[in-house]
Amino acid sequence: MAAMFYENPDLKKERQSCNFDKDEITNLIDGNMEKTKYRRELVEYILSDPSLKDPIPVEYLSHEEKYAAELKKACLLVQKMREPVPKEAKYEALRQENGKPLDIGVGPSSVILKEGNALGLHFVMFIPAIIGQGSTEQQNKWLPRALNLEIVGTYAQTELGHGTFLRGLETKATYDPDTKEFILETPSLSAYKWWPGGLGKTSNYAVVMAQLYTKGKCEGIHPFLVQLRDETTHEPLPGISVGEIGPKLGLNSNDNGYLGFDKVRIPRDQLLMKHSQVLEDGTYVKPKSAKLGYATMVYVRVFIVQDMAQLLRKAVTIATRYSCVRHQSELKPGEPEPQILDYKAQQNKLFPALAASFAFHFAAEKLWNLYHRATENIGKGDLQMLPDLHGMSCAMKALSSCETAKFVETLRQSCGGHGYMVSSGFPRLYAIATASETYEGENTVLWLQVARYLIKTRMDGSGGQSVAYLIGSKLPDDKVVDLSLDGIISLFQRVAAGYVDLAMKDLAEHGRQGMAPYDAWNHSSVQLIKAAQAHARYLVADCFVRSVREDKFSGPVRSILNQLCEFLLIYWLVERSGDFFMFAELNAEQLSQLQAKYMELLSIIRGYAVNVVDSFDIRDEALGSVLGCWDGNAYQRLFDEASKSPLNKNSVHRESFEKYLKPLMKSKL
Amino acid sequence: MAAMFYENPDLKKERQSCNFDKDEITNLIDGNMEKTKYRRELVEYILSDPSLKDPIPVEYLSHEEKYAAELKKACLLVQKMREPVPKEAKYEALRQENGKPLDIGVGPSSVILKEGNALGLHFVMFIPAIIGQGSTEQQNKWLPRALNLEIVGTYAQTELGHGTFLRGLETKATYDPDTKEFILETPSLSAYKWWPGGLGKTSNYAVVMAQLYTKGKCEGIHPFLVQLRDETTHEPLPGISVGEIGPKLGLNSNDNGYLGFDKVRIPRDQLLMKHSQVLEDGTYVKPKSAKLGYATMVYVRVFIVQDMAQLLRKAVTIATRYSCVRHQSELKPGEPEPQILDYKAQQNKLFPALAASFAFHFAAEKLWNLYHRATENIGKGDLQMLPDLHGMSCAMKALSSCETAKFVETLRQSCGGHGYMVSSGFPRLYAIATASETYEGENTVLWLQVARYLIKTRMDGSGGQSVAYLIGSKLPDDKVVDLSLDGIISLFQRVAAGYVDLAMKDLAEHGRQGMAPYDAWNHSSVQLIKAAQAHARYLVADCFVRSVREDKFSGPVRSILNQLCEFLLIYWLVERSGDFFMFAELNAEQLSQLQAKYMELLSIIRGYAVNVVDSFDIRDEALGSVLGCWDGNAYQRLFDEASKSPLNKNSVHRESFEKYLKPLMKSKL
Repeated sequence: MAAMFYENPDLKKERQSCNFDKDEITNLIDGNMEKTKYRRELVEYILSDPSLKDPIPVEYLSHEEKYAAELKKACLLVQKMREPVPKEAKYEALRQENGKPLDIGVGPSSVILKEGNALGLHFVMFIPAIIGQGSTEQQNKWLPRALNLEIVGTYAQTELGHGTFLRGLETKATYDPDTKEFILETPSLSAYKWWPGGLGKTSNYAVVMAQLYTKGKCEGIHPFLVQLRDETTHEPLPGISVGEIGPKLGLNSNDNGYLGFDKVRIPRDQLLMKHSQVLEDGTYVKPKSAKLGYATMVYVRVFIVQDMAQLLRKAVTIATRYSCVRHQSELKPGEPEPQILDYKAQQNKLFPALAASFAFHFAAEKLWNLYHRATENIGKGDLQMLPDLHGMSCAMKALSSCETAKFVETLRQSCGGHGYMVSSGFPRLYAIATASETYEGENTVLWLQVARYLIKTRMDGSGGQSVAYLIGSKLPDDKVVDLSLDGIISLFQRVAAGYVDLAMKDLAEHGRQGMAPYDAWNHSSVQLIKAAQAHARYLVADCFVRSVREDKFSGPVRSILNQLCEFLLIYWLVERSGDFFMFAELNAEQLSQLQAKYMELLSIIRGYAVNVVDSFDIRDEALGSVLGCWDGNAYQRLFDEASKSPLNKNSVHRESFEKYLKPLMKSKL
Repeated sequence: MAAMFYENPDLKKERQSCNFDKDEITNLIDGNMEKTKYRRELVEYILSDPSLKDPIPVEYLSHEEKYAAELKKACLLVQKMREPVPKEAKYEALRQENGKPLDIGVGPSSVILKEGNALGLHFVMFIPAIIGQGSTEQQNKWLPRALNLEIVGTYAQTELGHGTFLRGLETKATYDPDTKEFILETPSLSAYKWWPGGLGKTSNYAVVMAQLYTKGKCEGIHPFLVQLRDETTHEPLPGISVGEIGPKLGLNSNDNGYLGFDKVRIPRDQLLMKHSQVLEDGTYVKPKSAKLGYATMVYVRVFIVQDMAQLLRKAVTIATRYSCVRHQSELKPGEPEPQILDYKAQQNKLFPALAASFAFHFAAEKLWNLYHRATENIGKGDLQMLPDLHGMSCAMKALSSCETAKFVETLRQSCGGHGYMVSSGFPRLYAIATASETYEGENTVLWLQVARYLIKTRMDGSGGQSVAYLIGSKLPDDKVVDLSLDGIISLFQRVAAGYVDLAMKDLAEHGRQGMAPYDAWNHSSVQLIKAAQAHARYLVADCFVRSVREDKFSGPVRSILNQLCEFLLIYWLVERSGDFFMFAELNAEQLSQLQAKYMELLSIIRGYAVNVVDSFDIRDEALGSVLGCWDGNAYQRLFDEASKSPLNKNSVHRESFEKYLKPLMKSKL
C-alpha cells in the first residue's frame, strides 16, 4: 500500500509556493462557500460508508456482475440519502437545491459510480418529464411515487431506426374511445426503443415518446407514461418486450435497454397532458405553442455543459499532477530528468483544457440562469426567450461536448502509456465525454439547427440577444483588428458572420442554378456547420470574458482567470487561423504576436497550474485515478491497483496454461 | 437470426451500378492476385473451424475469463497453422512471405482475436529481436525453439518510469567475470518493466532491455535474453517478480505485464551479441555504428503504418455501408427519409478517411521497400540510408496513427449512438488505433525527432532524399501558387519549410537573449512539432501522388485513385488553411476554388464509395461489426447480438432485483 502521509516532493514544492486562496476558486466552482461546505460533507458522508466500497474493482467483473455490483451501490446510495443524518445530505436536498435540481446521476453518485448509473435517468429525465409534461393532476398522482422510488422510471425516446430526428419515430399510440385507452404498438423492427438508460432490467415504468393517433389522424410525438413491469414480481407485463442492449464503449453499469409493444393498452390519462390533451371522445387539444417542448431539452443540455466542465476538471487534475510528478528525458545534457510539466509541448496539451474547464463552467452557469428566467416567463405565458435559449443550449452543448472529448483524449495521451490504463481514470472520462457528443441531440444535427437560426437571423433580423451581432449594422467593423479580449471576441463574430455570408452566397448561387432550397441547404452544410461552430466559440468566449470581469474576485484569482481566458481565446484563434485570415483581416504579423503571447502565457500558467487543479477540490476517490491522486504517489498506486487483478491471484494461470499453452509448447512442428 | 440471402436493397442498388473491377482494388491492397487468393483461403481456413468460434462474445466475460478464452484461440490458431492442409496456410508461409514477415499478431489472427493477442509480441518482437540482435550462434540456438513455440517470449523495454526515452531506463545488467554471468537487477519501483504484451501470464522468456555494466562502467541499453518461468511448471524463476498490469482502454485479451529482477543471473551468452559483445573477461566491444539499433524500430513502425491502413479500411467499410442503409431525417419535405450517405455533412466525415486508407497503404508499401533495401545495404556494411529511413518511419508512424485514431472516432460518431455499441466494432478499432499513437515511440517524441532532422538538414544540408526539398536552392518557389497535385505537394513543402524557418528564427532569437540551446529548443517545440507534421503530410501526400501515377491501373481504378488522392490533399490543406496563408502565399480566392473542388469531389466519391469499400474484401467475421456487415441487415444484427447478453437470459435479473431494487422500492421516505 501507499505509505501514509506521503506527499510527492515536486507537488509539495508547487503547493508551498501557492500565492492565491485556493478556497476562492473552490467556492467559485461550487457556487459559494456554503455549497462547498455542503458538498464536502455530502461526499464524506458517502465515501465513509464501507457498504458503498467496491470489494473488487468493477473493471474486473463480467458484464452481468458489473450491472449487479453497481446497481447495489446505486440502491444503497438512494437509501442512504433518505436517512436523516447528516442533515445536509438529505435526499430532498439532493434533489432540489436552490431551484437547481441536483440528481444522483450527475451529482454525488458519480463519486462512487464511475460507469453510469442504472437509476440515473429516473432522476434526470423520468421525474423531470413528469414535472415538465404532466398536468397538475398527473403530477399529484405520479410524482410522490416516483420521488419515493415506489416506481423506477426511464425516458424512452430513441429507437433503433431514429434518434435526433424525432418526427421519424415510429412507435404508435392510438386512442380507442370505446375503452378510453391508448394502444401502444411497435410497428417494425426499427421502431423498437433502443438506448434508454436503466430500461433493460431496472425500470418498471417509462415515459415513452410515441406518435399519437386519434380520430384517424396522427398528431405527432407525445409523451406517455407506461408501466413496463409488474410492481411486485418485476416481470414484464403482457405485450411488453424488454431487455438489455449489450456492452458499449463505456457506461456499462447502466443497463441501456430495448423496448417493444404488442398492443399494450394504457389509460387515457397516461398521456402526459400539461401541454396537449386527448379528450374522452378522442378530440385532440393542441398545445399553446409547439415550442413548449423545447424547455425540457434545454434543461438536460444545461446539465451536459455543466458535466463537461466537471469532466474537464477531473481530466486536467489527473494530467497536471502526473505531469508534475513524472520526470522524463533530458532538456539540459547532464542534468536530472526534468518534470514533463516543464516541456512546452506538454503545457500545450494541458493548459487549453484547464482554461476550457472554466469557460464551460461559466457557460453552464449562464445557460442555467437563462433557463431559470425563461421557465419563469413561460409560467407567465411569455415564450419570447425560447428560440434564443434553444439556440444557445444547442451551440453550447455541441461545443462543450466535442471540445471536452478532444481535450480528454489529449490529456490521456499526455500521460503516455499509463493514460491507457483503466486505473488512470481516462478511459471512463472519455467514454462519458464522447457519449455526450451523440445523445440529447447529435452534434452535427445541433450544429445545423444553430446554423438555421443564424441564417434566419441574418436574413430577417429576427433572432434574440445571442445572435444580435449578425443583424445588419451591429456587425463588427471588419477593418480594424484589435488583439484585446474584446477585439478577439469581435474577430470570432466576424468569422461566424463570414461563414454565414459565405453559406448564404452559396445557397443563392445554388438557387440560381435551379437547385431546390433543401438540396442547396445540403450542399452548403459543410460551411454552415463551420458557421455554427464559430458562433458557439464566440458565445462561450464572450461569456468567459464577461464572467472574469465580474467584480467578485480577489486580485490574484482575477489575474489567473484573466490569463486563462485570454489564453483560451488565443488558442482557439491560432488553431483556426485560416478562418481569421479569410474573414477577419488578420495578418501574419498579428498571428505571430498572438503566438508569442500564447507561449508567454504557457510559462505563466505553468506557475500556478498545480495549485489551480488542487483548488478544484476533487477527492481521490471521486477522481478515480492512480495517476492523479493528491499525494502524487503515481507509480506505487499503479502497482497497488494492478495487484488487485484476479490474474495475479496465482503465479500461474493454471487452467489456461495446462489446457492450451502447455500442449502448444510440447507439440513440435 | 438474420434471414439467409438477404441483401439490403440500397446496397444492392449501389452494387448493381459498379463500373470498375473490384478485384483490381482487392489485389492492389493484397499485393497481387495470388496474394488475394492466398489470403482468402487462409481466412476461410480459420473461420471455418468451429473450435475457433466464441461460445459467448468475449465482451460479456470477466477480465480473467477474457484472457483464458482468447489465449485458447491464439494457441489453437498457432497449432492449426502447423497442420499441413491446406498447403497455402502453412505456418511457415505465415511467418515469412516474400521476405515480408506476416505474423499471427497483426495478420490473420486479427480475424478471430479482436482485443489483442497474448502471443502477438512473440512473433512481432521477440523473434525479430533474436534475428535482429542475436549473433549467428545465438540465432541457431534460440530461433528454432522460438519458432517451434517451445518457448514463448516477449520484448520487455518500457518501465513504469520510462517509455520512449530509452536512455532513462533503469534496469541493470551487471557482468560478473567470475561466474561469466550477468546479474539483472530492478533498482527501484520505477524500474519495473511495465506494459510488455503477453508478459503477465503467458511468456516464459523475454528479450529484456537493460543498462549494461561491465568493468564498473555503464555501456548503455542492451538486449538480454532472459528466462522468466520454468519451462515445465511455468512457475516464475527465483528472483523474478512477474504479473499482469490490469484492465486497459482496449486490447484486454493481451496480458500486458510487469517484471522485476532481484539479482537474477543469466549466462554471458544471453546478451544478444550481433552488434556489441561482452567478452569473457568483461571487455566491452562496441557496435560498428550506434545507428544499427534503428533498423528494428523501423521494422515495427512499418507494421504500424500498414496496420493503420487496415484499421481505416475496416472503419470506413462499416461507416459507409451503414450510411448507405440508414435513412434519417428529411431533405425534401414530404419525400421519404434519405440515406444518410447522401448528406454532405456525412460524406465529409467518411470520405477523407476512405482516401487516407489508400494514402497510408501506399506509405506502408514505400516504407517497407525502403526498409528492405536499407537492410540489404546494412548487410553490405552501408548504413547511409538509415537516418532518412528513420526520419521517414517516425513521421509516417506518427501521422498515420494520429490521423487514423481521429478518423476512426469521426467514423464512429458518423454512425450515431449505434457506433457506441461494442457490437459496432468501433470501440475496438479505436482502442488499437489510439494505442499506436503511444507505443513504439510516443508521437510527440517522434515529431520532435523528425523536427531535429529537418532543422539539421536545413542548417547543414546533410539529410537524405525525403528532406531534400529543404536544402537551399531546392526549396520550391514561394511566389507561384499552382493548385495541381504537384502544386499542392509543393505547398506542403513550403509550409514545412516555413515552420522550420520560423523555429530556426525563434531558436536564434532565444539564443541572442542568452537562452541555452536546450531551453531554446523547448521554447520552440510547439512550432517544431508543426513543422514535423507538415513534413509528414508532404511525405504521405507525395507518396500517394506518385503511387497513383504508376502505370499499372485500369482507367476506372486510376480515376478513382486520382480523385481520392486529390481529395485528401485538398482536405488536409483546407483543414489547415492558416498555414498556407501564412507560409505559402495562398489567397482567399484560391481557397474558395479548393473548397468548391472539395464539394465536387464529395459528390463524385459518393458514386463509388460503397463499391470501393466492398473491394476491400473484408469478411463479416473479420470486420466484427453488426453495422458494417455485407448484407446491410444492421438493425436485425444489432438486435440478434443484444440477445446474446447474459442479462437477457431471464426476464428479471432476479438476484439484483430481490436484494437491492425491491427493498428500495418497498421502503418509504
